Amino acid sequence: MKVPVSDYLQQVLGECLADEGSVCDVIPELARVDPDQLAVAMCVADGTMYTAGDADSRFTIQSISKPFTYALALADRGERALLERVGVEPSGDPFNEISLEAGTGRPDNPMINVGAITTYTLVGDGDLGAQERFERVHAGLSAFAGRDLAVDEAVFASEMSTAHRNLALAHLVRSHDIITCDPHEAVTGYVRQCALLVGVRDLAVMAMTLAGHGRNPVTGVQVVPEPVCRLVLSVMATSGMYDAAGDWMTQVGIPAKSGIAGGILGALPGQVGLGTFSPRLDRFGSSSRGVQIFERLSTDMGMHLMSSPLPGVAAVSESGVLERDGEQWFQTVVQGPIRFVSGEVVLRALSRIEPGPMPVVIDVARVASVDDVGRRMLQEGVRRLKLDGHRVLLIDPREVLADPGADATTDATTGEASTGVGALP
Amino acid sequence: MKVPVSDYLQQVLGECLADEGSVCDVIPELARVDPDQLAVAMCVADGTMYTAGDADSRFTIQSISKPFTYALALADRGERALLERVGVEPSGDPFNEISLEAGTGRPDNPMINVGAITTYTLVGDGDLGAQERFERVHAGLSAFAGRDLAVDEAVFASEMSTAHRNLALAHLVRSHDIITCDPHEAVTGYVRQCALLVGVRDLAVMAMTLAGHGRNPVTGVQVVPEPVCRLVLSVMATSGMYDAAGDWMTQVGIPAKSGIAGGILGALPGQVGLGTFSPRLDRFGSSSRGVQIFERLSTDMGMHLMSSPLPGVAAVSESGVLERDGEQWFQTVVQGPIRFVSGEVVLRALSRIEPGPMPVVIDVARVASVDDVGRRMLQEGVRRLKLDGHRVLLIDPREVLADPGADATTDATTGEASTGVGALP
Amino acid sequence: MKVPVSDYLQQVLGECLADEGSVCDVIPELARVDPDQLAVAMCVADGTMYTAGDADSRFTIQSISKPFTYALALADRGERALLERVGVEPSGDPFNEISLEAGTGRPDNPMINVGAITTYTLVGDGDLGAQERFERVHAGLSAFAGRDLAVDEAVFASEMSTAHRNLALAHLVRSHDIITCDPHEAVTGYVRQCALLVGVRDLAVMAMTLAGHGRNPVTGVQVVPEPVCRLVLSVMATSGMYDAAGDWMTQVGIPAKSGIAGGILGALPGQVGLGTFSPRLDRFGSSSRGVQIFERLSTDMGMHLMSSPLPGVAAVSESGVLERDGEQWFQTVVQGPIRFVSGEVVLRALSRIEPGPMPVVIDVARVASVDDVGRRMLQEGVRRLKLDGHRVLLIDPREVLADPGADATTDATTGEASTGVGALP
Amino acid sequence: MKVPVSDYLQQVLGECLADEGSVCDVIPELARVDPDQLAVAMCVADGTMYTAGDADSRFTIQSISKPFTYALALADRGERALLERVGVEPSGDPFNEISLEAGTGRPDNPMINVGAITTYTLVGDGDLGAQERFERVHAGLSAFAGRDLAVDEAVFASEMSTAHRNLALAHLVRSHDIITCDPHEAVTGYVRQCALLVGVRDLAVMAMTLAGHGRNPVTGVQVVPEPVCRLVLSVMATSGMYDAAGDWMTQVGIPAKSGIAGGILGALPGQVGLGTFSPRLDRFGSSSRGVQIFERLSTDMGMHLMSSPLPGVAAVSESGVLERDGEQWFQTVVQGPIRFVSGEVVLRALSRIEPGPMPVVIDVARVASVDDVGRRMLQEGVRRLKLDGHRVLLIDPREVLADPGADATTDATTGEASTGVGALP
Repeated sequence: MKVPVSDYLQQVLGECLADEGSVCDVIPELARVDPDQLAVAMCVADGTMYTAGDADSRFTIQSISKPFTYALALADRGERALLERVGVEPSGDPFNEISLEAGTGRPDNPMINVGAITTYTLVGDGDLGAQERFERVHAGLSAFAGRDLAVDEAVFASEMSTAHRNLALAHLVRSHDIITCDPHEAVTGYVRQCALLVGVRDLAVMAMTLAGHGRNPVTGVQVVPEPVCRLVLSVMATSGMYDAAGDWMTQVGIPAKSGIAGGILGALPGQVGLGTFSPRLDRFGSSSRGVQIFERLSTDMGMHLMSSPLPGVAAVSESGVLERDGEQWFQTVVQGPIRFVSGEVVLRALSRIEPGPMPVVIDVARVASVDDVGRRMLQEGVRRLKLDGHRVLLIDPREVLADPGADATTDATTGEASTGVGALP
Repeated sequence: MKVPVSDYLQQVLGECLADEGSVCDVIPELARVDPDQLAVAMCVADGTMYTAGDADSRFTIQSISKPFTYALALADRGERALLERVGVEPSGDPFNEISLEAGTGRPDNPMINVGAITTYTLVGDGDLGAQERFERVHAGLSAFAGRDLAVDEAVFASEMSTAHRNLALAHLVRSHDIITCDPHEAVTGYVRQCALLVGVRDLAVMAMTLAGHGRNPVTGVQVVPEPVCRLVLSVMATSGMYDAAGDWMTQVGIPAKSGIAGGILGALPGQVGLGTFSPRLDRFGSSSRGVQIFERLSTDMGMHLMSSPLPGVAAVSESGVLERDGEQWFQTVVQGPIRFVSGEVVLRALSRIEPGPMPVVIDVARVASVDDVGRRMLQEGVRRLKLDGHRVLLIDPREVLADPGADATTDATTGEASTGVGALP
Repeated sequence: MKVPVSDYLQQVLGECLADEGSVCDVIPELARVDPDQLAVAMCVADGTMYTAGDADSRFTIQSISKPFTYALALADRGERALLERVGVEPSGDPFNEISLEAGTGRPDNPMINVGAITTYTLVGDGDLGAQERFERVHAGLSAFAGRDLAVDEAVFASEMSTAHRNLALAHLVRSHDIITCDPHEAVTGYVRQCALLVGVRDLAVMAMTLAGHGRNPVTGVQVVPEPVCRLVLSVMATSGMYDAAGDWMTQVGIPAKSGIAGGILGALPGQVGLGTFSPRLDRFGSSSRGVQIFERLSTDMGMHLMSSPLPGVAAVSESGVLERDGEQWFQTVVQGPIRFVSGEVVLRALSRIEPGPMPVVIDVARVASVDDVGRRMLQEGVRRLKLDGHRVLLIDPREVLADPGADATTDATTGEASTGVGALP
Repeated sequence: MKVPVSDYLQQVLGECLADEGSVCDVIPELARVDPDQLAVAMCVADGTMYTAGDADSRFTIQSISKPFTYALALADRGERALLERVGVEPSGDPFNEISLEAGTGRPDNPMINVGAITTYTLVGDGDLGAQERFERVHAGLSAFAGRDLAVDEAVFASEMSTAHRNLALAHLVRSHDIITCDPHEAVTGYVRQCALLVGVRDLAVMAMTLAGHGRNPVTGVQVVPEPVCRLVLSVMATSGMYDAAGDWMTQVGIPAKSGIAGGILGALPGQVGLGTFSPRLDRFGSSSRGVQIFERLSTDMGMHLMSSPLPGVAAVSESGVLERDGEQWFQTVVQGPIRFVSGEVVLRALSRIEPGPMPVVIDVARVASVDDVGRRMLQEGVRRLKLDGHRVLLIDPREVLADPGADATTDATTGEASTGVGALP
């Protein structure tokens, strides 16, 4: 059988017919595009890609570049340094509006132009030259996409010729010492960043990288650390789709970002990366059919931040006293990803074990991933069981419970436990 | 061993020391509370409750009632009818600000007072009397909490004596025909709703009911339908914590609502319900230590909307050709909750089966829950396998793949498959 | 010959044809008026009245009452007490908007409804009963008009039935303790004030009373002190015509106030009082043809605050050394109103007199009025001339230079001088 | 005797002691000024100048140049063309705020920086080069001052080095096509305009030129037409003193403009021009002691737009039937400036003449000035008297009633009348 996801995506494209609005005419070069193009791509956690429509079309990334430059700046300078220069509050304003915090002149968020121009100047060290900074941005966005992205020089030149407003914004933040470099250099670099050429597959991979804790699901490269992704996704959720944060959150519920060339990128944490392309724009400046596709995916496929399955007791697939050859032990088989919620289920299962000498076997061989909390919780469970007098045997062939970066021999608790693997009767 | 969650909560309480601000003095009766009280409660999906601190303290629910009245109105009138009267956009304003949409006079969202008063009048049929409407609200909030909530008559009387601003707001929406009943009746009912007495356990259960698809995890009562919860949680995420939507989303990332009596409620979809209580308020009117507790829970325990574990391939615990007594079949064991992302993993495993007569066994006995999308995906997989010539046998003892509400005999595909359970060699 | 002013007004009415907009339909009773009525009245400083059109029509005064209630409150409580409760800044908002100063809740100005309701409660002593307060307002507005104004009970009842917004505003300022009485009492009184019946002649007299230093030009009653008028006219100039202060100032330049029943009142300080009536309203809620009439009067007749004639040297009609019967004296004949600018001209003429014994005659018999500054300046001139050795003789039959309220015999300087009248050779 | 005006100004300086605030430190060069300087100058209609304090100090004109550049642009392009590019509404914002009309991008008014930069580009023809445009502005402002103003090159260079915000504003209006030249060229010219060196005497002369219908009272040059002055003064009245239009109007009532170098200019139409200088600025960016001086002048000397003297019957100094040698005639002696209000008084005096053959003598020899309305009114009076059968003799030696620009012989009515001068018995 064939996985029906692409068929489904094809069906969605066929049903998103209302192509109102018109192609962006602010930038002359963008107005020359074929307005009927339509494409969607979906990338899942292991890098598998599904597409439908004109998936080979190339278009300039435009504002969709903003969350990625923000991610790079966060990775390079840290959250505190960024927050001093760029806020995280929705502005309730269109993308090119002037939303600076009273007094400080700090842009409201990195998703509006003035915030994105500021963010651009915060990628890399402060003393980078203009050329070096763009190369850092270019390399970073390429790492998110998993391939070297080219610049559309015609679009770049076209945008620079009408960049009055962006120049105004850059001078404005320069006047508040929010940026410290030459405003024209900042705008040139930012406009060049916006002129990077992508397709919907690139958008889906870039989105899945954000949704997948910063690791590119295709190349395996850790582009930015996980906490950076959490912050970027949060900002996309409240400020990504301009002046309708509540509407997008209720109707779609996928952290997203659109660009005036017609692309939209969506990243559902831990689940999928999405990219759409259709050049005609609605009155908010977002791809008209792209928005419809996202609404369909959210409604039909339950892709919504607020649609989380209940874990039930599924984290513990087996739990109870086993006996072999007259010897009894308590066995718990853990499955699925372990984080707080599922960790609590596991600990609750372990709490039913009466104190005493009965050996306890905890089988985490099927556990796909463990986050810090889950690891600490299971380690604490092991510690407490030992205090109760139990011998604890961890079946952890992939060492998911070993502290990352810790030398195995330095952690007595899990170290001892791990050595027990295979030693059961 | 003892589950260490309560110990952890106790530890968090002990570390949230900075109790700045002061008790609400706007309402005389509230100013008489013991300001040093501190409590936290956590309710998980199956209703298990953990608490620390003064968990038996009672306080008035105040604004924390807003999302629940909104849920009741949505359930009674439908999303469209509500959207005509109350928006879903963050107002960027304090809780008692006047944020009406220009032209229509529609309150920005149901979390600010003017939106909450309007929402109160939309619970139940339009022709309910004042007494009947309050009874409907009272019964609804009690169902969320799982017990009959009492009204603090002293606080109710105290708030009514200083309700000038709420009366102003009610007259205002009355002037726009947003509410159609007597403004004083609306305010009286709303203030009475705010005077319902709760404890942190109540908040945790109410939150888990929202986070758990509308079903009270303790009583098992389905209080409101699942889609209502998605909408309510979305609005809480963008508008619940007043004028710092971006800050709360980035730093905490838990849909939440605070009340001026010192309570905060947080609901992480599919995961936990949280309630805190500490009467001193910060400058935004939210419990000062309550906010700290939420920040700690988010940071330390990965409780953040944007922190989702990667499913990896965990949805399929076993997959491959088995052989017994010379007969071969393909067996797939599915586990965990099945939704789009995990459904795609299952379908991908099934897609590796070569067309032909080989029987396929799909074991969903360990699957805890399946949403509509997951169900349709697995049904489609079964259908395609049959088209490829396979005989498909579903091991589905709890009938998680049966269409809910559909008569089993009317669904030939899964009906046939299900009958095959146990018939394998 | 007949004074052609009424002919001119008739001609203006005939040329203001574009009667766009429609009659106010917010208040049911107002919608029943004949929409084609058109009238204008002009009252000059001595009470002479010119009218054209339907000058006998009666209509409710509505918002035109606001500056007069403000004047009464200023007279009763003083400028400082008023400023604590109501500001003087334009709000840039429509007439029924909620424009309260952040923090204090103080209405922006007394010309918007919330400021006018507040102002109503500040007329008379703070302990006036509801009935007494309205009587004070009623008597005060009647004094401005010079006749007892009746209340249109039908319009009053009609407005009260739809007074939701005004009730909202009153509750709002009550919540900030800006008003201290019952909000419903304040709104009832204010709406009753708005229902007073007037005609264009009344408006013209009321306006000329403001423009004429607070003295009714027909009855001669000093309704409020002069400084109150200066403040009221200032507020009308910046806030009287709602959200287009700059447009009205540049295009018309007459302090004015409009009412939704179709009246407009304009007061050009020291010059004229104007009243117009035409029920159809433009999009700002001001009489459509009334605005045109004001534009015509301003443009055609130079009635604009910024169109002041240059005084030239006209203040001194004669100045020089005269000789009779071998005796020489210096004679200065002063004319026109004497204030700073003309006073300076007089002093300059006097400064040309060489020190010495030559008598100086200052003839102010033709001087119509002298303000405090002008009086002090001429008194100082007399004092200095005496110091120079001159005998000074004032010809001041109407005693315009005598200190008002001062006993003539107590002022040695002018007293001595005045006695010289008629004693010259 | 000596005219005591300078003594009075000296006294005012001595009483404005509260010199709070500090010298502008935004522009490095301005921070080097002696902060204790204090000066005031007053220029009256005929160019007479009074000063007190450091009247010889020079300082850069800064924002005080704005109304004059606006006047020049109005004279060069016309009111309609200016209104398309720059509004006339107060912005309620500080001087360097970004207040553009939604949609059009039109600056709110020419007194905020973005409006002033735009206005600068509208002086002269659209095709002027950068150097030519500045020369036109320089020549124009010098004509207002009556002497060639020099540029402070050090301040100019200092301001250009920190002109980021002005550059931002210029790029912004360039992006809306409100300005069409290079933004850097516009800012350079504007900053150079702001660096023109003036003293308080210059300010007083410039102000009196505006207040005196556009004619420089010292040089006699008509710098701009009268209607331009009315518009400029109107805009100064509502937008000149930034975000407190109502406060300034009520407390001072003099159209004014301040500059950050410490100057304030005030122009009371038809009366006086004022200039003050004191470098320490209040929180609004206006000279702290300068504001106090203006408040004193307004309060003490009745210099307030809303303080107009009542004309009374002073326009007609004599009126009645005279008889000489058995011949009777009606004689009316008119005095003071004749505009609508005084014209009406004259016409009313003439209306008392019974129709018939009695000759009428109208003596306007003492009339200082007549505006268009006054002229037309008196001409109409003459025409009506003739229709009544009178012979009319005008005593008009300075031909104030002759149509300006009209050949005397082409106007039959007044022509005939004028010939009668001196022909009376």
